[in-house]
Amino acid sequence: MAEKITPRETDYSQWYIDIVLNAKLADYSPVKGCMVIRPRGYAIWERIRDELDRRFKETGHQNAYFPLLIPMSFLKKEAEHVEGFAPELAIVTHGGGEELEEPYCIRPTSETIIWSKYKEWIQSWRDLPLLINQLANVLSWEKRTRLFLRTSEFLWQEGHTAHETEQEAVEETLRMLEVYRDVVERYLCIPVLTGMKSETEKFAGAIRTYTIEAMMQDKKALQAGTSHFLGQNFAKAFDVKFQTREGSLDYVWATSWGMSTRLVGAVIMTHSDDKGLVLPPTIAPEEVVIVPIYKNDSKAAVLAYAGKIEAGLKAAGIRTVLDADDSSSPGWKFAEWEMRGIPLRIEIGPRDMQADKLVMVRRDSGEKKFVMAANAVAEARNLLDAIQKALYEKARNFREANTVKLKDLKALLDFFGDEGKGTADARGGFAEALWCGSAVCETDLKTRTKATLRCLPLDRQEGIEGVCALCGAPAKYRAVFARNY
Amino acid sequence: MAEKITPRETDYSQWYIDIVLNAKLADYSPVKGCMVIRPRGYAIWERIRDELDRRFKETGHQNAYFPLLIPMSFLKKEAEHVEGFAPELAIVTHGGGEELEEPYCIRPTSETIIWSKYKEWIQSWRDLPLLINQLANVLSWEKRTRLFLRTSEFLWQEGHTAHETEQEAVEETLRMLEVYRDVVERYLCIPVLTGMKSETEKFAGAIRTYTIEAMMQDKKALQAGTSHFLGQNFAKAFDVKFQTREGSLDYVWATSWGMSTRLVGAVIMTHSDDKGLVLPPTIAPEEVVIVPIYKNDSKAAVLAYAGKIEAGLKAAGIRTVLDADDSSSPGWKFAEWEMRGIPLRIEIGPRDMQADKLVMVRRDSGEKKFVMAANAVAEARNLLDAIQKALYEKARNFREANTVKLKDLKALLDFFGDEGKGTADARGGFAEALWCGSAVCETDLKTRTKATLRCLPLDRQEGIEGVCALCGAPAKYRAVFARNY
Repeated sequence: MAEKITPRETDYSQWYIDIVLNAKLADYSPVKGCMVIRPRGYAIWERIRDELDRRFKETGHQNAYFPLLIPMSFLKKEAEHVEGFAPELAIVTHGGGEELEEPYCIRPTSETIIWSKYKEWIQSWRDLPLLINQLANVLSWEKRTRLFLRTSEFLWQEGHTAHETEQEAVEETLRMLEVYRDVVERYLCIPVLTGMKSETEKFAGAIRTYTIEAMMQDKKALQAGTSHFLGQNFAKAFDVKFQTREGSLDYVWATSWGMSTRLVGAVIMTHSDDKGLVLPPTIAPEEVVIVPIYKNDSKAAVLAYAGKIEAGLKAAGIRTVLDADDSSSPGWKFAEWEMRGIPLRIEIGPRDMQADKLVMVRRDSGEKKFVMAANAVAEARNLLDAIQKALYEKARNFREANTVKLKDLKALLDFFGDEGKGTADARGGFAEALWCGSAVCETDLKTRTKATLRCLPLDRQEGIEGVCALCGAPAKYRAVFARNY
Repeated sequence: MAEKITPRETDYSQWYIDIVLNAKLADYSPVKGCMVIRPRGYAIWERIRDELDRRFKETGHQNAYFPLLIPMSFLKKEAEHVEGFAPELAIVTHGGGEELEEPYCIRPTSETIIWSKYKEWIQSWRDLPLLINQLANVLSWEKRTRLFLRTSEFLWQEGHTAHETEQEAVEETLRMLEVYRDVVERYLCIPVLTGMKSETEKFAGAIRTYTIEAMMQDKKALQAGTSHFLGQNFAKAFDVKFQTREGSLDYVWATSWGMSTRLVGAVIMTHSDDKGLVLPPTIAPEEVVIVPIYKNDSKAAVLAYAGKIEAGLKAAGIRTVLDADDSSSPGWKFAEWEMRGIPLRIEIGPRDMQADKLVMVRRDSGEKKFVMAANAVAEARNLLDAIQKALYEKARNFREANTVKLKDLKALLDFFGDEGKGTADARGGFAEALWCGSAVCETDLKTRTKATLRCLPLDRQEGIEGVCALCGAPAKYRAVFARNY
């Protein structure tokens, strides 16, 4: 119920947790760092997953499934990869009542197990490109967890592709980044920056990592998806060579890219308010809830009228629920369905019925509209479309209002607050600044302000002139810094 | 290619493996007992999974997701349950670089982790029924594995429901058994017996286990799905009580039910032949393949004509692929697509084109039909429907031809062969016989013939008169015995 939601101003973290728990999206579990995804949360993930799946198939990818367990020796074949993942692994040492000769880890990601098979499947350029996606659970031990946003186990999709040429692999990396951007912006209404990660922040084993970065309502950044150009790193680690069109042997070129249940957390944090969850209609388990209002003498007639409206909406393909539960009041239901994030509420009372009307109330703005019953379907469609657009606009305006261009360290410290002076956590947002490319500058800023280099935005790297905001050396990139999840 | 498939008569097991590997449905993996599901195999599983999912939602179930790892102490709360699973567990002893205080096992099934949450979610009869399904990977160590049919890790769905009354839970158990039967018979064209398992064969922790049992082409039985009435066993183990409508406290009643990627193996074994895979059109990745036949001078015209046919079929929603690859001959393509199990082949040559015709060839029977191009869609639909029906009929006839009613031990030993005399593995099928209900009789037959009690068919328990075929004591049940996968 709405009164259980802590206001954002009071405690942003608690507000988020309150929504997740009260809207029954997820729950804690008895397994350290792992969550339970409840039906309403899973329904959101299903819609996101299915949209991604559709887009992957549209771009020529096929699904497959590889083992959950990975021999430890595999992980060690790519030096940076094992270094990146080793501290967070869950290790299986016993199986079938015996101690195993070689321990397995539970996959934190599947590059190594997949490339051990690609070695067998790829012989010639005719076997390429190999465009495979996997829907799976992965696990890497996390100390500080938060429902959906950071859990030891999570569900994701991971694409793993192999190509004849470097150029093709780079194109694939950017193609999937663009699919991610489009799904997140249009389907989830979350505006994102697309950019490249720094060496410090890139995926362990990648040549270059591309990312989409969103801004949450507390002005922190959230990495919503990544796409990696792996070069020939894994091909060399697993000795995957192919016969080229010219008849010579070469290592294949690779990409990988992933998105996870973390997206559900991003949606919640981006759109919700102090009344509870706000969802884009595209991913809401129900788009419309009908709440009938009646007394004993009008009950049968109002319910029949509401049932007709419900049937009309459903027949038009609008996901609709009629809340005819007699044990709670209309006012309680309004608050409850607002908390659950249903985009559009329809109220129907005896007077509405007599006038062949109904009332539509938008979850995002609270705006009310009187609608003729005959126009219910058309008007519901209009309002759902309007909500979808408005959520994106609102989030984009918020990000723009909280993005600044800064020129020097002093400005960055002012913006993010200085950890040393106890002013960190005070402000923040996205700070765009020139950067020399040195990891030292990155680390320095992170230590003092907790702000990290989120990405080098792809569309802002032209005409770089000037000096690094951090050290004064000649600048090479335009970078965006922010605190992050 | 077709020539790689070992004939069934020569070596049935090798025939199966040849099909799985050559049709690229699955592959071995470097992880002991675990398989890789390749794109063509995964596409079949996706279609089965989605049909099940649709049917589960139609019957009021919702999906959720629970942790992969289960604290060992949870498994021990239900005595029979832990006894049934303990020998096959994979144990995680280390996580995040440290030895864990309490080891986890990887879920072999999720009753215990799920019921630990149901304890929190269920307070009153208003919270019931709770109808949840999970799509997940599970793992239980297997010594002798076979692709799809028996692997340490596999994908499945597991339903876990909680109810107010015993009757409701029993009804749910049988409702889901019926969903399973219907999907397997109508969607996968595999006839099944529905029945109850004996005490020896039931699920560890269940009061009663119901099963659907299919017959493979080597006359062995395959358990294709199970539905368990769990009584109050898990509610008591996890102390899940609810306030009844009358205001008292009672333990809730439970069911669980599951089907897995094993079904893909069942489909392969039931329908395929010595040319390779045979698939019901419902689950085939492609329903129709068009193979154009041309010489250089007719190439452009034939391809254009074939392209029009392809577009017409696709527009009608028929999953169609046009194989225009110039590097292999029509004859090679015929064999290749037969091996891959595409239900319907369309051949188009220059003469067909000139006559506005095409040739349709059924994968199941090899039957050829000349069809006017204008009738391509209607005829393809007719033939695909006919194939779907014919596959079921053929499998049912095979099962009926290999099912016998037997009266005594001698007849059973003759039918199954006697392990002691070296005649086991020689014959077999389904043997229906009267049974006293004693586990001793079951074990005795198993030891001598490898045949197990598959089920007590639900529709054959009326009017039992006579004596147990095994011991001569008064009979209580009509049982079906068979060797099994």
